[in-house]
Amino acid sequence: MKKYQVVGIGNAMVDVLARVDDAFLEAHGVEKGIMQLIDRDRAVELYEHVGPAQQVSGGSAANTIAGIAHLGGRTAYVGKVRDDQLGEIFAHDLRAQGAAFETPMASRDTVQETGRCLVCVTPDGERSMNTYLGVSEFLGPEDIDETMMAEAEWIYLEGYRFDGPDSHKAFAKAIRACKAAEGRVAITLSDPFCVERHRDAFRRMIAEDVDLLFANRAEILSMYETEDLDEALARAAEQVSILACTDGEKGAYILSEGQRWHIPAQPTEVVDATGAGDLFAAGLLWGLTSGRSLEDAGRMGCIAASEVIDHIGARPAADLKNLFHQYGLA
Amino acid sequence: MKKYQVVGIGNAMVDVLARVDDAFLEAHGVEKGIMQLIDRDRAVELYEHVGPAQQVSGGSAANTIAGIAHLGGRTAYVGKVRDDQLGEIFAHDLRAQGAAFETPMASRDTVQETGRCLVCVTPDGERSMNTYLGVSEFLGPEDIDETMMAEAEWIYLEGYRFDGPDSHKAFAKAIRACKAAEGRVAITLSDPFCVERHRDAFRRMIAEDVDLLFANRAEILSMYETEDLDEALARAAEQVSILACTDGEKGAYILSEGQRWHIPAQPTEVVDATGAGDLFAAGLLWGLTSGRSLEDAGRMGCIAASEVIDHIGARPAADLKNLFHQYGLA
Repeated sequence: MKKYQVVGIGNAMVDVLARVDDAFLEAHGVEKGIMQLIDRDRAVELYEHVGPAQQVSGGSAANTIAGIAHLGGRTAYVGKVRDDQLGEIFAHDLRAQGAAFETPMASRDTVQETGRCLVCVTPDGERSMNTYLGVSEFLGPEDIDETMMAEAEWIYLEGYRFDGPDSHKAFAKAIRACKAAEGRVAITLSDPFCVERHRDAFRRMIAEDVDLLFANRAEILSMYETEDLDEALARAAEQVSILACTDGEKGAYILSEGQRWHIPAQPTEVVDATGAGDLFAAGLLWGLTSGRSLEDAGRMGCIAASEVIDHIGARPAADLKNLFHQYGLA
Repeated sequence: MKKYQVVGIGNAMVDVLARVDDAFLEAHGVEKGIMQLIDRDRAVELYEHVGPAQQVSGGSAANTIAGIAHLGGRTAYVGKVRDDQLGEIFAHDLRAQGAAFETPMASRDTVQETGRCLVCVTPDGERSMNTYLGVSEFLGPEDIDETMMAEAEWIYLEGYRFDGPDSHKAFAKAIRACKAAEGRVAITLSDPFCVERHRDAFRRMIAEDVDLLFANRAEILSMYETEDLDEALARAAEQVSILACTDGEKGAYILSEGQRWHIPAQPTEVVDATGAGDLFAAGLLWGLTSGRSLEDAGRMGCIAASEVIDHIGARPAADLKNLFHQYGLA
């Protein structure tokens, strides 16, 4: 048995969650429902204009790893924070959830701080994310511990990380070490505009290295530059062993080795959509690495996603294992 | 018209809210339902043992001021944070709510950080608070702006502040400046053990300076060293123009100039009791400084308290003015 079921690599972030209305998004040029990269000045300016906020650990792959750890899975996370108060909060929350987190912190002298994501949550529960990457951007190959990668059944790579200067090298090093030890590689496309920024690099990685691809509808359409979801799904499924594509309230599609499943979403009131995709990946990866069928793993993904959107923040609040039991997924 | 309806002075805190069970409290020697002062080592140790947490601005008087500001009241807050990330969060949340906050921050070189309160929330909604005061302890007379105090209809003093080395001098300076301009003085006893630590100082201040006294049942019993609530209420009411004493799910008693009212509590599910007393004070002070009768102001206090305990954190989430309207308090 390998030491880790899943090792995630991503942008380490603390989420700053604030309730706003649609007029606020308009007035401040925040595009709804997506992630926008912002610099420190813009981060300060936007923060000045939002109302009181809550701070909770976030980061897409970190949410996924926290979700798997919450389920009792053996996990580790690789991402860069600074040795500051937000960095402490981020590290605490992962470790408190039971995940290993050993990436060296950037020192307090570093100009950039721990990354933060100002998440504007509108009354419809949709989240519009404004990300100041901070030190998370500087995760490089030197932060990738090859022994840890070799000890992973799966590594899980966050598409957002393509935005960093050394991210390709870091990912390549992780993939090499993981594959050499017969581990497998999962990636999430993260965001349609992230796909647009790095389409070629994503395509190359999918063609060459990826075993399991996570995407949502907008991301996979952007990847294959089509409006036809079935076409995009078919093209992706040709290249990876497993494709898992979420489609909002319609649920998720899973394609693997010529088979296709549609998993309906669990009906829930959407309080805060932040983390839905991250927790879908957590449920699916946990199911998959715990010997469940792919279909059951997909159902676990949909249940975990519906749990995280019924409250503020992108980490589980209820006991996900209990929820799985309630749905007959013992 | 004075510039401020209420100026609050207190310990500036960021709350770190974590869900725990009663066994955790027992195992880690956390006394249930009260506030314990802890040093930095103990703060680090306890934090290491709790699960994932949420960070939200807190501080007792700051919660009250945020509540009044949320209602549209003219308010300011005086309290000490450091120029660090938690200090920024604290300052942001008050200002974003519309309160003035001008106390100079301690510089980044200060050894102590911005204060934090690790709030352990048990399944019954009760909160057990572990406070690392940090720089908030060092608020001194030099931080009291006499002009601001003179511009306040009311100053609102947090009993917890009696724990700081220079707090008595700071309070004395604030009271002098406020009274010289015909302002009035409210104080909250904050906590039964805080009362025990400073009973004589509280008594002196109540006898000499306090116009409006806030307390809960445990605090006022501790103050007068009796088990008889009516006796304690009567003794306090002799010394102040207005006494407002909360009594958990029984609601609140208000005594003034020989009259006595009982205001029933609004029935609510208690998710997190943090801030109930603070928001009671907010509702009452807002009503009082907006021309409402004392009884209506008390009802506003009970409504605001019931709103804040139905969610995690000690600041209002719903629109309190709407709630007042719903209850016929237009």
